[in-house]
Amino acid sequence: MPEPLPVSFLSDFGLDDEFVGVVHGVIARIAPEVRVIDVTHGVPRGDVRAGALTLMRAIQYLPQGVALAVVDPGVGTDRRAIAAETPWGYFVGPDNGLLSPAAAIVGGSIRVVTIENSDLVLPSLGATFDGRDRFAPAAAVLASGQATLDEIGSPVAPDDITPMILPLPDLGEASIEAEAWWVDTFGNVQLNVGPEDLAQIGVSVGGLIEVIVGPLKRQATWVRSYGDVDAGRPLIHVDSTGMMALAVREGSGSEFFVVRSGGQVTLRKP
Amino acid sequence: MPEPLPVSFLSDFGLDDEFVGVVHGVIARIAPEVRVIDVTHGVPRGDVRAGALTLMRAIQYLPQGVALAVVDPGVGTDRRAIAAETPWGYFVGPDNGLLSPAAAIVGGSIRVVTIENSDLVLPSLGATFDGRDRFAPAAAVLASGQATLDEIGSPVAPDDITPMILPLPDLGEASIEAEAWWVDTFGNVQLNVGPEDLAQIGVSVGGLIEVIVGPLKRQATWVRSYGDVDAGRPLIHVDSTGMMALAVREGSGSEFFVVRSGGQVTLRKP
Amino acid sequence: MPEPLPVSFLSDFGLDDEFVGVVHGVIARIAPEVRVIDVTHGVPRGDVRAGALTLMRAIQYLPQGVALAVVDPGVGTDRRAIAAETPWGYFVGPDNGLLSPAAAIVGGSIRVVTIENSDLVLPSLGATFDGRDRFAPAAAVLASGQATLDEIGSPVAPDDITPMILPLPDLGEASIEAEAWWVDTFGNVQLNVGPEDLAQIGVSVGGLIEVIVGPLKRQATWVRSYGDVDAGRPLIHVDSTGMMALAVREGSGSEFFVVRSGGQVTLRKP
Repeated sequence: MPEPLPVSFLSDFGLDDEFVGVVHGVIARIAPEVRVIDVTHGVPRGDVRAGALTLMRAIQYLPQGVALAVVDPGVGTDRRAIAAETPWGYFVGPDNGLLSPAAAIVGGSIRVVTIENSDLVLPSLGATFDGRDRFAPAAAVLASGQATLDEIGSPVAPDDITPMILPLPDLGEASIEAEAWWVDTFGNVQLNVGPEDLAQIGVSVGGLIEVIVGPLKRQATWVRSYGDVDAGRPLIHVDSTGMMALAVREGSGSEFFVVRSGGQVTLRKP
Repeated sequence: MPEPLPVSFLSDFGLDDEFVGVVHGVIARIAPEVRVIDVTHGVPRGDVRAGALTLMRAIQYLPQGVALAVVDPGVGTDRRAIAAETPWGYFVGPDNGLLSPAAAIVGGSIRVVTIENSDLVLPSLGATFDGRDRFAPAAAVLASGQATLDEIGSPVAPDDITPMILPLPDLGEASIEAEAWWVDTFGNVQLNVGPEDLAQIGVSVGGLIEVIVGPLKRQATWVRSYGDVDAGRPLIHVDSTGMMALAVREGSGSEFFVVRSGGQVTLRKP
Repeated sequence: MPEPLPVSFLSDFGLDDEFVGVVHGVIARIAPEVRVIDVTHGVPRGDVRAGALTLMRAIQYLPQGVALAVVDPGVGTDRRAIAAETPWGYFVGPDNGLLSPAAAIVGGSIRVVTIENSDLVLPSLGATFDGRDRFAPAAAVLASGQATLDEIGSPVAPDDITPMILPLPDLGEASIEAEAWWVDTFGNVQLNVGPEDLAQIGVSVGGLIEVIVGPLKRQATWVRSYGDVDAGRPLIHVDSTGMMALAVREGSGSEFFVVRSGGQVTLRKP
């Protein structure tokens, strides 16, 4: 047996029910030596795009091994269950786009299989909890080396996997039509805009940016860190994952700029 | 020393305070080699029945070892603290019915003791946190093999343990008076009704069922999986634990049928 | 290499985003053999005092090793990042008072350094996530023995560390002006008052105490445990950490006495 790989587990199960604990239990029964790291289980229910963005942001900080991700509004339909091999390690989850951005940034899928081997899938009267019955066992046997990818199911062409289309900003000469990809628990608003995009409309660090959300126009200074503005003041900066984010020092960017996840934001040089 | 057993830990402590972390800490101080799996700490505060149902649903998916469960509105009264041996492993918690359904479905309690050995109970000025002072040490020594059941306290007759009376459905010739046992975080409503009960009133897979909640009458199709109805449509099906559940594909059964945990539901052949 | 130390991790990150999982991931990448215990991540956002009190209450129940604590409204300013050695083990976090009460009750800081070694700090475009980039790597190398305190940064005089001033009660001859230090998830209200303070105003176990919150006057009996009053009745007692707490048996002390964390409470012999 090779050294066991760690499993990093992300879902929209929340922590109110026993779903997360049961998945841990299933993995521990099959492969007691495998460690499981909870990435988060707070992905908004059924929001595949939010889950895909979360996994994409986290993946390079997780130990190489198995990424088990379950945000699966299509459970109980004919959407495929897949396991993919990438240069980082294995990805296990539904074939609904959830895994695609993270798999892409670590080098892409080399091989992909459906999870079909009936020796691995737990028998269940109901068909609503593939996280427990199908994905957890697959993650456990891959992490522990009890099965190879080939033994889990039938090959799928990597090109045939469901992609996740992430909206790109619309770059004009003087403005950017952007979208909020993520509002975190502190109220920071991550946009689908990188620092190089702002350079294109002539703004640089230290400069002012006009932030337009619907009828609201506000201004923010592009700073390097929170300390460059006073407490309570708005700012725009490169966040911890390298994207531009709207924030308020010791406050909530989401409240100040009145924008939620998925909201449209126009950035303009004033 | 035998191989350490894993501890599976369930409570109503929530995750806002340090209670769960402190229980993990106490176990780690006594038995650093023991692994702890969090089943859930989101049981509604003081709801012993909900905790008992949660543990019962989870138990067969947890690795054999020690089940540590604390939903304990009677802490600081004379309710007993117990540890029980079952074919699955040990159960540790208050003697208020919390452990009984799960212990029963894994084969029942073979031996039971009160947790009384003052060498094991942590000294504390207050008497409000038996999870930390009494249950965690007992779980730690049982899991690590540092003590046997006999060394923990005095024997109790298994028949003398507080049972948990779970309401059964009232089966008529043409209808079933049921109760909602659980509404999960996705809004799925588990009833205290099995598929065999529906057969008795003449409904089978593919058939329509009338669902009556107070003055509201709605209909649902009995299907095998979510994919058998369109998104947004109601259904009734066998859920992941083998019970009948009301649901809405990509929606909330609880909202659609207007029923919460503990609510009364009448099922009838239309 | 010495035996790895466990890391106990506390923050205000919440569990909705991937922040906690990413910190676990960073530690696992640097030191896969190190175990991480989550104390809580539910400290109110940016509330350094609440975080300091939580860590102080928990510390003696956590296994000796590394305490990693991040409640850090000053991230991105010139507040220092520090690692301290105490008789209990290491403390890692921002120098904003968060670590001070817990470090003090385990014997105080023997040596303190800033976390500055650029070999240890993860490179990042943004400067908003020191938990990931600076504190997690420091905790990982200290826990695994990969670096000594001296190798992490420059010495700071222990006296030069930011203290946390905790409000003390104002003891009169017949009354105590107290403050609520903590309201837990069950509604128990911990006051900054010990049993010896109540003795000074002539109240002892079994006696009545008048509890005044703004215009509201209520009474509570000082009891040893919940079982000494009927369900639904108010009480004052020594809680699980040795402080006086207002409670209601099977109810909420916070609701009954109308007091929140930080609220002022007058205690008086009736």
